[in-house]
Amino acid sequence: MSEPFTTWQSRFEKLRSNKFFEAMVIAIIVVSALVIGAKTYDETSQIEQWLLYLDIAVTIFFLIEILIRIAAERSLLDFFKKGWNVFDFLIVTASLIPMDDSEMVLLARLLRIFRVLRLVSMIPELQMLLGALVKSVPRMGYVVLLMFIIFYIYAALGSFLFHNVDDFLWGNISVAMLTLFRIATFEDWTDVMYATQEVYAWSWVYYLTFIFLTAFIFLNMMIGIVLDVMQKESALLDLDNEEGDAAQMQGLRRDVRDLRAQLDRMESALAQSHSPHGSAHNDAGGKHTDKPTTD
Amino acid sequence: MSEPFTTWQSRFEKLRSNKFFEAMVIAIIVVSALVIGAKTYDETSQIEQWLLYLDIAVTIFFLIEILIRIAAERSLLDFFKKGWNVFDFLIVTASLIPMDDSEMVLLARLLRIFRVLRLVSMIPELQMLLGALVKSVPRMGYVVLLMFIIFYIYAALGSFLFHNVDDFLWGNISVAMLTLFRIATFEDWTDVMYATQEVYAWSWVYYLTFIFLTAFIFLNMMIGIVLDVMQKESALLDLDNEEGDAAQMQGLRRDVRDLRAQLDRMESALAQSHSPHGSAHNDAGGKHTDKPTTD
Amino acid sequence: MSEPFTTWQSRFEKLRSNKFFEAMVIAIIVVSALVIGAKTYDETSQIEQWLLYLDIAVTIFFLIEILIRIAAERSLLDFFKKGWNVFDFLIVTASLIPMDDSEMVLLARLLRIFRVLRLVSMIPELQMLLGALVKSVPRMGYVVLLMFIIFYIYAALGSFLFHNVDDFLWGNISVAMLTLFRIATFEDWTDVMYATQEVYAWSWVYYLTFIFLTAFIFLNMMIGIVLDVMQKESALLDLDNEEGDAAQMQGLRRDVRDLRAQLDRMESALAQSHSPHGSAHNDAGGKHTDKPTTD
Amino acid sequence: MSEPFTTWQSRFEKLRSNKFFEAMVIAIIVVSALVIGAKTYDETSQIEQWLLYLDIAVTIFFLIEILIRIAAERSLLDFFKKGWNVFDFLIVTASLIPMDDSEMVLLARLLRIFRVLRLVSMIPELQMLLGALVKSVPRMGYVVLLMFIIFYIYAALGSFLFHNVDDFLWGNISVAMLTLFRIATFEDWTDVMYATQEVYAWSWVYYLTFIFLTAFIFLNMMIGIVLDVMQKESALLDLDNEEGDAAQMQGLRRDVRDLRAQLDRMESALAQSHSPHGSAHNDAGGKHTDKPTTD
Repeated sequence: MSEPFTTWQSRFEKLRSNKFFEAMVIAIIVVSALVIGAKTYDETSQIEQWLLYLDIAVTIFFLIEILIRIAAERSLLDFFKKGWNVFDFLIVTASLIPMDDSEMVLLARLLRIFRVLRLVSMIPELQMLLGALVKSVPRMGYVVLLMFIIFYIYAALGSFLFHNVDDFLWGNISVAMLTLFRIATFEDWTDVMYATQEVYAWSWVYYLTFIFLTAFIFLNMMIGIVLDVMQKESALLDLDNEEGDAAQMQGLRRDVRDLRAQLDRMESALAQSHSPHGSAHNDAGGKHTDKPTTD
Repeated sequence: MSEPFTTWQSRFEKLRSNKFFEAMVIAIIVVSALVIGAKTYDETSQIEQWLLYLDIAVTIFFLIEILIRIAAERSLLDFFKKGWNVFDFLIVTASLIPMDDSEMVLLARLLRIFRVLRLVSMIPELQMLLGALVKSVPRMGYVVLLMFIIFYIYAALGSFLFHNVDDFLWGNISVAMLTLFRIATFEDWTDVMYATQEVYAWSWVYYLTFIFLTAFIFLNMMIGIVLDVMQKESALLDLDNEEGDAAQMQGLRRDVRDLRAQLDRMESALAQSHSPHGSAHNDAGGKHTDKPTTD
Repeated sequence: MSEPFTTWQSRFEKLRSNKFFEAMVIAIIVVSALVIGAKTYDETSQIEQWLLYLDIAVTIFFLIEILIRIAAERSLLDFFKKGWNVFDFLIVTASLIPMDDSEMVLLARLLRIFRVLRLVSMIPELQMLLGALVKSVPRMGYVVLLMFIIFYIYAALGSFLFHNVDDFLWGNISVAMLTLFRIATFEDWTDVMYATQEVYAWSWVYYLTFIFLTAFIFLNMMIGIVLDVMQKESALLDLDNEEGDAAQMQGLRRDVRDLRAQLDRMESALAQSHSPHGSAHNDAGGKHTDKPTTD
Repeated sequence: MSEPFTTWQSRFEKLRSNKFFEAMVIAIIVVSALVIGAKTYDETSQIEQWLLYLDIAVTIFFLIEILIRIAAERSLLDFFKKGWNVFDFLIVTASLIPMDDSEMVLLARLLRIFRVLRLVSMIPELQMLLGALVKSVPRMGYVVLLMFIIFYIYAALGSFLFHNVDDFLWGNISVAMLTLFRIATFEDWTDVMYATQEVYAWSWVYYLTFIFLTAFIFLNMMIGIVLDVMQKESALLDLDNEEGDAAQMQGLRRDVRDLRAQLDRMESALAQSHSPHGSAHNDAGGKHTDKPTTD
C-alpha cells in the first residue's frame, strides 16, 4: 500500500470511531426518521418542498458516511464481511436510485422507512439485544411447530364444520387459521362462538379445548425460555464459583499432599536412625518400601 | 424363525430406520395435510378429482408404510406396545373403511384431519415435547379443581341472581360458567357487567371478586409450575455438581485418612524403638492403645 | 369420662376417619352441588319435587355427619378450634332454619351454594392450597396499596376532567375507578379513549401513562411473588444441602483435629525419648510446652 | 446555636418521630383524599360548604406539619436535601396560593389530588417500593428503545399504506402509533385488520408480524427483568454462603497449615536428636533428598 493511501485510511478510521461523528450519524438518522414521520401529515406545499430538500441532504450525508466507513476499512471485502455493513450499504445505495415513476414511489418510501433501522446498526447495545432475540428463536422451534399443527388441525375442523355458518370467518383453512389466531388473542372470541353455537350448540367444546391447548402450550413455551436462559445463567455462575470454591479445594488438597510427603520423609528418617538397633519395623502402608540401609 | 423371514424382517427394519424413508413419510404427511387444506377452498370439479386421486395415493402409501413398520417388528405385539403405533394404525386403517354414505363423509374427513397428528408420531422431538406437556397436567390438578369450584359457585350465584336480567348469558349454570370463562378472558366483560348493574347496582362486587380470584389463582398456578420445573432442574444440577464438588471432598477425606494410617504406623515404630529405654509413654488419644512391645 | 361414652367416642372417631365414610361425604357434597346446578334449569314440577326431596336428604345427611364429627371429638371446644369445622357447622345449621318467606329464599339458596366449599374442608390438599394462597396475600400488601393510590389519583383526575364527556364512565370517583379497572384489563379501552379525545385531544397521555404504570407495577408484583417463593425454596434447599456438604466438611475438620492430637502425642513421645541425649529442642509452636521428662 | 432554640428543635424532632403524630398525618392525608373523592359526587350546597371547610382545615394542618418538620431539622438545607421533603413542601405551599380565577381552579384541584401521593412520602415501605420500581426502569431502556423503533417503522408503514383506508386510525404517524398500541393490547385489533384487508388482502401479514414482534420483545423484556433481579438475589445469597461454607474452608486450611508447622518442628527435632551422630542432613524444605547417613 502506498504511503498517502494509508495515511488517508487511518484518518478515515479515526473519523469513523470519533464519538462526535457517531453522535452526528445517530442524530441524522433520527432527523431522517422525523422527516419520514412529518411526511405522513398533510402539509402545505412549502413544507413539503423543505422536507424534500432535507431528504436529499440526509441521503447525501448517508452516502458520504458510508464512503468514509468503506475508506476506513483496509479492503472492500473487510467492509462487507459484517452483516450490518451490508444492510447499511443496501439501504443507502437503494435510496440513490431515482424513482420518479409513481408506482415506484411506494418502494422509495419503504426504503426511507427502513433507514430508521440504521439506529440498530449504529448502537452496539441494540445490536447485542437483537442478536439475543434472534438467538432465542431456534430454542422454541418445536413448540412453534406443535402450535402450528394444533392451529392447522383446528382450522381444518373449523372450516369443515362452520364454513356454512360464517363464510368470512371459516370460509377456507387460511381464513380459519386467522380466526383461530384471533380467538387465541381473546379478541371478541365469544362473538365467533355465539354465532356457531346457534347452529351447533356443542361448539363451545371446540373453542374451549382450543383456548386451553394454546394457552397451555404458550405458558410452557414461556416457562421453557425462562428456564433455558436461567440454566445458562447458572452455568456461568458455576464457572465463576470454580475460581472461588474449587480453587480453595485444590489448594487444600495440595497442602494435604505436601503434608504426606513430609511424613514420608520423616518416616524414612526414623526408620534409618532406628534400624541399627535391629528392630524390623513393619510397613503396613502399600506404597512405602523403605529399604533398611546397611551401615 | 425361518431364515428368509428374518432376512425380510431385517430388510424392513433397515428400510424403516432409513433417514430417506423417514423424510419421505414426513413429506407425505405434509402433502396429506395440504390436501386437507386445499379441500376447504371452493374448487373446480377437475381439481377436486385430482385431490381425490392424491388422497387415495396418500392412503395407500400410509397403508404400505404401516405394513412395513409391522413387518420390521419381531412380532405384532411388539408393534402395538407403543402408544403412537396404535394411534398410527387406527388412523390409517380407519381411513380404509369405505364411507360413501353422506352422513359418514364428515367422519371420514375428521379421520383425514387427524392424520396431521402423525407428524408428532414421526418426529421424536415433538413426541418428547408432547410427553412433557402431558406430564405437567397432574401437577396442577388440585389448582384446576379449586378453580372449578370457584367457577361453579360463582356460576350458581350468577344464574340465581342474574337469570332474569339476561337469560342468554345467565339462563342456567352451564351457560353461566361459559359466561364466567368469557369474563375470565376479559372478553367484553364490561358489557355483561353494565347489563346486570342496571338491575343490581352492586353487581360490580361479583365481577371484581371473581376476576381477582381467578387471576390470582391463575398467577399462582403459573408460578407453581415454573417452580416445580425449576426444582427438578436444580435437583439435576446438584447431581452434576456431586461429580465435581463432592468427589473432591471424598478424595480429600481419603487423603486425610491415609495420613492418619501413616501416622499410626510411625507412632508404633517410634514406640517400638524407644520402649527398650523403659519409658512407658502415655497414650492420650482415646482409641490408640499402642502397647509397648519388648524386643 | 364414663366408659360407654369413650367407647362411643372412639367408634365415631373410627367412623370419621374411615376412608369410605370420607368418600361418601365428598360424594354427597358433589350431589348437593349437582342439585344446586339442576335447580338453575327450568324444570317440570315433578323433577322440582324430586330435587326438593334430594335437598332435604342431603341436609339431613350433613346434619348427621357433623354430629358424628362432634361426637368423635373429646369436647365441643376441640371441635370448634378448627376454623374449617366452624365453617362446616355454620353452613349445615344455617340450612336447617326454615325459610319459607319468599324474601329469605334467596339467602337459603346462597347457603346451599356455599355448601360446595365443604369440598375444600374435606380434601386436605385443597385446604393446603387455599392456605398457601391466603399466605401469599400479605406479601403483596404494599404493592396493592401503591396500585390503589395510583387508581385513586387517576380516578380523581379522570372524574374531574372527563365527567362532562361521559357521565356514565366518569361521573364520580367510584365509577371512574371501575372504568380504570376496565382499562387495566384492556376491555374496549380505546372506545373510552376515543370518546374523551374528541373533547381533549391530548387525553391519550392520560390513558397511556395509566396503562404503563399499572402494567409495570403488576409485572413487578408478579415477579416479586415468584422471587419470594423462590427464595424460600432455595432456603429449604440450602438446609438440605447442609446435610450433604456441610456435614462432610464437619467430618473433615474432625479428622484433621484428630491428626493433630496424634501428632501432639507423637511429639511429646519424641521429646521424652530424646531429652536424655541433652538436645534442647526448640518449641516453635506457641501452645506446646512439652516439658522434657527425666528417665 | 442558642440553648432555647436547640430545646425547641429537639422537641419538634421528638414530635415528628412520634408514632401517634405520624399516624395522625397519615389519617389526615386519607381524609384529604376522601374529600377529593367526595367532591366528584354531585352534592347539595351545604355539603359542599362543609367540604370547603374541611379542605381549609386540611391545608392548615399540612402547613403546620411541614413547619414542624422544618423546625425539627438543624438547618433548612438539611430539610431540602431529601427529595420527598421537597415534594411535600411544593404540594403544601402551592395549595396555599389563592386561586379564585375559574381557570386556575383546575390547577388547584390537581394539586389537591397529588396530596394523596404524600402517603408515599409518609410510609417508608412505599418509598422503598417506589424506589425499586424507579431503579428497574433503566435496565429495560434499550428494550424500550428497540420497541419504539419497531413501533415507529410499523407506524410509518401503516400510515403510508392504510391512511386512505381509515384516516382516523392511520391518518398520520402519531395516530398510527396509537393504533398500533391498541393492536399490541389486542383491543379490537381484528376490526382494524378486517377494514384494511378489504383494500389490501395481504395486510394480515402486517398485523401478525407486528403482534409476534411486540409479544416476543415484551416476553423477553419480562424474562430479562426476572433474571436480572434473580442474579442480584443469588449474588446476595452467595455472599451469605461465604460466611458459612467459605469460612469453614478457611478454618480447615488454617488447621492443615498448623499441622504442617508442627510436623516441621517434629522433623527438626528428629534431625537434631540424630545429628550428634554426625549426619548433617540438609533440610531443603520442599523435595527432601534424604541421603542415607552412615553412623
